[in-house]
Amino acid sequence: MNQRKVYNVAGKNARRVDGIEKVTGKALYTGDLQLPGMAYAKILRSPLAHARLMKVDASRAKGMSGVIATLTRDDIKDLNYKYGATYKDQSIVAVDKVRYVGDPVAAVLAESPAIAEQALDLIEVEYDELPKVTNIEEATAPGAIQVHPGDIARAELRGSVYDAPERFSGTNICYYLGFSRGDVAKGFAEADHVFEDTFRFQKVQHCSLEAHVNIAHYDGDKLTVWASCQDPFTLRDHLAGIFRLPLSRVRVIVPWVGGAYGGKLYVKAEPIAAALSWRTRRPVKLALSVSESFKTITRHPARVTVKTGVNKDGKLVARECQVYMNTGAYADAGPRVAQKAGYRALGPYKIPYAKVEAHGVYTNTVPAGAFRGFGALQVTWAYESQMDMIAARLGLDPLEFRLKNLLKKGDLYTAGDTPVDCDLNEGLLKVADAIKWRQKPSKPNRAKGISCCIKDAGGTYKVAGATVKMSSDGSVVLLTGTVELGQGPRTALTQVVAEELAMKLDQIAVAQLDTDVTPYDISTSASSSMVVMGTAVLRAAQDAKKQLLQCAAKVMKKKLDNLRLKDGKVVAKGGEGISYSKVIVDFFGSKAGEVIGKGLYKDKRSKKAILGSTTTFWEVGWGAVEVEVDTETGVIRLLNYVSAADAGKAINPEQCIGQDEGAVMFGIGHTLMEEMVYEDGQLLNPNYVDYRVPTFKDLPDHLHTILIENRNGPGPYGSKGLGEGGLLPVASAVANAVARAVGVRIQDLPLTPVKVWQAIQAKQRTA
Amino acid sequence: MNQRKVYNVAGKNARRVDGIEKVTGKALYTGDLQLPGMAYAKILRSPLAHARLMKVDASRAKGMSGVIATLTRDDIKDLNYKYGATYKDQSIVAVDKVRYVGDPVAAVLAESPAIAEQALDLIEVEYDELPKVTNIEEATAPGAIQVHPGDIARAELRGSVYDAPERFSGTNICYYLGFSRGDVAKGFAEADHVFEDTFRFQKVQHCSLEAHVNIAHYDGDKLTVWASCQDPFTLRDHLAGIFRLPLSRVRVIVPWVGGAYGGKLYVKAEPIAAALSWRTRRPVKLALSVSESFKTITRHPARVTVKTGVNKDGKLVARECQVYMNTGAYADAGPRVAQKAGYRALGPYKIPYAKVEAHGVYTNTVPAGAFRGFGALQVTWAYESQMDMIAARLGLDPLEFRLKNLLKKGDLYTAGDTPVDCDLNEGLLKVADAIKWRQKPSKPNRAKGISCCIKDAGGTYKVAGATVKMSSDGSVVLLTGTVELGQGPRTALTQVVAEELAMKLDQIAVAQLDTDVTPYDISTSASSSMVVMGTAVLRAAQDAKKQLLQCAAKVMKKKLDNLRLKDGKVVAKGGEGISYSKVIVDFFGSKAGEVIGKGLYKDKRSKKAILGSTTTFWEVGWGAVEVEVDTETGVIRLLNYVSAADAGKAINPEQCIGQDEGAVMFGIGHTLMEEMVYEDGQLLNPNYVDYRVPTFKDLPDHLHTILIENRNGPGPYGSKGLGEGGLLPVASAVANAVARAVGVRIQDLPLTPVKVWQAIQAKQRTA
Repeated sequence: MNQRKVYNVAGKNARRVDGIEKVTGKALYTGDLQLPGMAYAKILRSPLAHARLMKVDASRAKGMSGVIATLTRDDIKDLNYKYGATYKDQSIVAVDKVRYVGDPVAAVLAESPAIAEQALDLIEVEYDELPKVTNIEEATAPGAIQVHPGDIARAELRGSVYDAPERFSGTNICYYLGFSRGDVAKGFAEADHVFEDTFRFQKVQHCSLEAHVNIAHYDGDKLTVWASCQDPFTLRDHLAGIFRLPLSRVRVIVPWVGGAYGGKLYVKAEPIAAALSWRTRRPVKLALSVSESFKTITRHPARVTVKTGVNKDGKLVARECQVYMNTGAYADAGPRVAQKAGYRALGPYKIPYAKVEAHGVYTNTVPAGAFRGFGALQVTWAYESQMDMIAARLGLDPLEFRLKNLLKKGDLYTAGDTPVDCDLNEGLLKVADAIKWRQKPSKPNRAKGISCCIKDAGGTYKVAGATVKMSSDGSVVLLTGTVELGQGPRTALTQVVAEELAMKLDQIAVAQLDTDVTPYDISTSASSSMVVMGTAVLRAAQDAKKQLLQCAAKVMKKKLDNLRLKDGKVVAKGGEGISYSKVIVDFFGSKAGEVIGKGLYKDKRSKKAILGSTTTFWEVGWGAVEVEVDTETGVIRLLNYVSAADAGKAINPEQCIGQDEGAVMFGIGHTLMEEMVYEDGQLLNPNYVDYRVPTFKDLPDHLHTILIENRNGPGPYGSKGLGEGGLLPVASAVANAVARAVGVRIQDLPLTPVKVWQAIQAKQRTA
Repeated sequence: MNQRKVYNVAGKNARRVDGIEKVTGKALYTGDLQLPGMAYAKILRSPLAHARLMKVDASRAKGMSGVIATLTRDDIKDLNYKYGATYKDQSIVAVDKVRYVGDPVAAVLAESPAIAEQALDLIEVEYDELPKVTNIEEATAPGAIQVHPGDIARAELRGSVYDAPERFSGTNICYYLGFSRGDVAKGFAEADHVFEDTFRFQKVQHCSLEAHVNIAHYDGDKLTVWASCQDPFTLRDHLAGIFRLPLSRVRVIVPWVGGAYGGKLYVKAEPIAAALSWRTRRPVKLALSVSESFKTITRHPARVTVKTGVNKDGKLVARECQVYMNTGAYADAGPRVAQKAGYRALGPYKIPYAKVEAHGVYTNTVPAGAFRGFGALQVTWAYESQMDMIAARLGLDPLEFRLKNLLKKGDLYTAGDTPVDCDLNEGLLKVADAIKWRQKPSKPNRAKGISCCIKDAGGTYKVAGATVKMSSDGSVVLLTGTVELGQGPRTALTQVVAEELAMKLDQIAVAQLDTDVTPYDISTSASSSMVVMGTAVLRAAQDAKKQLLQCAAKVMKKKLDNLRLKDGKVVAKGGEGISYSKVIVDFFGSKAGEVIGKGLYKDKRSKKAILGSTTTFWEVGWGAVEVEVDTETGVIRLLNYVSAADAGKAINPEQCIGQDEGAVMFGIGHTLMEEMVYEDGQLLNPNYVDYRVPTFKDLPDHLHTILIENRNGPGPYGSKGLGEGGLLPVASAVANAVARAVGVRIQDLPLTPVKVWQAIQAKQRTA
């Protein structure tokens, strides 16, 4: 706790360091790059959801003028062509089967994108169509066809509780997590009431402004990949594996990235570009269209059944959650998402008896993977909808019902994990106050809804390094592996350096992210950058500070203890200061020289924790909304939305608020409109005409974020991470408000006008 | 001394790590790079050697279609437009005057190089021609016009003995170094014989295969420069000064470089490209033609007078050297070259009384700067020619005469400097033996010549850092600021890492040199990389090794002292080894993580030393040659050339030999043919048709390098630097052999057939 400490830079709304470059259009994204001799790749994708590949013949395409090379299953056999974030179930291009509409079958490399596109038509493919499973119900039905028959090595997922794999042998269940607290049957028996409700979450896409794009160049010695990705070190790892290269011969460079949201984690289309470059030694650009990004990765559709036992006084007694996560045709990060969904399914409540079973399910649809919220979103939708349903059934106020059951600071979510590190009541009361919970709505068909959730943040196991390099003029370059995806870490991390080294922000620059030279960072994910990388950067700056002071002690002939940093100078007690530049120049005896500070962060492992490591910090989401439902059209209007975010200490409050507001906006998408629609295995709307994302018109009339800053986080100056919390309560808060406004309860997202109108009609019919 | 230690990698002829990439044409040089939106610059150069600029009007050029911007003196006023390696006497483009034929007057930026070239013709310039001085004699004549009237701050040169500046006020002398030992007049008075001879060295060019080229991009936030240069950190420093940016906002990246030889040190045309990008925010490519490189930087023409007092027993008693170095129109590194020429003028001999005066002289010719040999070359030509002249006059054998006077190991060259660190006799006897010195020539007009010299190596004051980054598969990326110019440091430094970390070479890669992330290195120059950077790399590897062992001690639960590295494994005493990969993965608990080792080298300052710091090591050149002179044509044929190089310990013997042989070849150029010819201030031969460099046809019939390895150097494993030593004795050895073969002594280089023939004719006339 640094309750009383005053900061110079941390906590100030510093201007985004990448702002001008981006708004003036100068920022170079991967798609902007040109390399000498660059060629262009296009992918031929499966038109069928499930089929055996009988023939793939690219010879005609290869003969076309302007075509440099083609890539089919015949060309990848000398590589470790199977890969995957958790299981090696995916291949660079399809080998034996295609498993979803959009599955890469072959690729063409040509002198122009147009030629490559045209040449795709010349590739002859014969399919033997197979029966398919396209949703959880079909995939888990007895006797369902298996998407991946036989055994895939599924034991790789570190920290999982994948017990009894034989139980799921021959099924489409590719991951299972089960854990319990006490005898849940006994709990239900003890409870006064038991309610069981099932909720569904639809398939949605990340919709990053920048679709997936990468450039790969293997020059015979080294494979260099410029990628729009959020975990370049992991990508390097996978590529090194595929091409059997030491990590020192794979280099991933990350230019500016136009949004990611989890969709640019692990491996996507990079192996195709790299394999084409491997064969031709040409730099290969592979830029997916928006439609192709829709066919690359999505969020998990889910079915969540929550059975809750509650006493008549409103105390929760027991809860059992059955979670099914549809991970599509390939596992990608799906097992981890299913694991986290399972772990997070119980909600932020004290429940004596509990049991969770979470399942990852293969289907013949686009793979689902990491996505902002990472499993928490689907289960929050379920348990926070049910909380209101129970309150309604028992005649309790939804706020009071929650307050009665919320975990307290210091309580354990599960045994062995980090205790809850914030006051859940505080945030819930803040959003309730802000929305004027107790005040009756001013018009009919208006009502308020609330929601509250908790998410173990930081990811599974985080390691991050950082370097602070101070040149002889005292200016600094920061080396950090955190990817600037638009979420602002460059600015916030620069503020940490500036704070520690008592410098001006404009003297600090962030180096281009390049795995060759940037210290290792596991990934930019899970709202973790401020805590994980922030700590590494803090330590690197402190290391640089220590060295600078040591140099100064020699140069100034003063005792180390009497020196401190102030406004770019080393100041001796009761004396004048000298600039960092002078310290370094005098120490080295010339302009030659610099100070290099290193910092490292790594999570703690814990054998007692269910997932093998403890939670870095708890990210909380609190949301309150007032809606008005047009009963004639089913349109939901958001009058007011209040979100609260626990920043611990906001390093850059405006950016924190921006992140939280953006999260709410994101939530509005899957709450009201977004849905990938399938018909007979075909995705009907992989584009921004047919798939609607929220625009500024869809914003609530009033949108407000409350930052909670108790300086109680593990990050620099007591900070925590945020960016996902705001997203999680939106759907349930809105659904809860709709139920209170017009008396209809919708358990399947999204809450489209049609669905709401139909529900109102059905209710009127039964009334 | 590691006399008995056996090395696994150091000392082996490892294959060049950049070999395949370069010979297959895959290596990208600066000229190969393309950037999105890149534009092309061309420079308008002065046709006059000296003139006042009356008018520079680029408005017509600016109006031409395809022209993006122009750059004249009107456009640079808001910048710190004056710069220079030692004095700020040069401006981005000419402001008040032009001072040599080729001086940049203006520049054009256009959509293509051809348009830019064409638009140069539309720039209107009016000159008011001024009298000029184009050689040392004209420039030092009483009442000579001053190239830079008024006072330029000339006191910047650290370590210089620039006393009595008023003495040279109003002259073209821009630098002076004077030092003496004892009363030299007394020495001459005591000597039995006193000889005074004057020697001249011509103007030659570096002739790198790759002419000067750079790309500059200022995006409004950061200035990034891709440059073919050998001291990116210095370039960064200068550019930061010109554009008033912190060093953290200037980034210099060095792609492959096609030769440099000192010609790519400090600032050259980069400010022009950067200023055009500063004005337009476009990436600007500025590729000089060969002719323009001739008009950018050269070696110093010199006049050296050596007065030597010697006793009849052949012992040297006194020597006075008057050195004049023609630095051209701008100082560039000239003052440092003049300083080093002065310091090195006495030769490798024990001389009780000595006096040196060295002068840097401005003239209206292309600037002269750093060039392989750096001042040592011109004075070696003088004193080693005179040694043979004295031997001839006194009837002494040139070998015996030298052996009688050579400094011994441990002797001081000057008080306060590092004692001589090698056996000068050893090398001289080796080359004499190899050339069969005592054996009479087999034919008329054949004779042998020898030469021997010493050069304080390492440069003025060296600082270098290095980082060794080991990933979780145990492979390594090395971050080093040493530029691979073709001389092989990437391979040799990789060998040092491999040796220290007991690894295979193919597991180690060298990162792209980028001032943002690469640790500071002052420059790749002065044969210093093996000692200076080699030591930094050694220390970085040792730091990584220490950390790796610490991790291993924890992972293996062994005492640190019982662990060592062997074949990519950490091996416990009497036990099995585990791979580095397993050590790191187990230590971090996942594939996440890495080990980062840091190393730093800095020279020692010394107030007692004449130049303010002591010599890092002594580089020695020993050469012996047998020539045959065609008296009908004056053509000199090199029958056999033997060079000896003191490698201390050759990390890669083949590369050392390659460097030394290349140096000899280089020396053959200025010895027999190379010369930049001026007429009325105009350079007549700035191209490879009129300016001849040696080809394979000009190689000696036999060429041999002897490596001396006594493991007595300060670098890794006892290594020293080399690469310049072989160059220094060539001219004097050849001239000495010619004199012994046909009795003519030529004191002005090069020894062209015409000059030799004329000397033979003149001798025959007087005979």
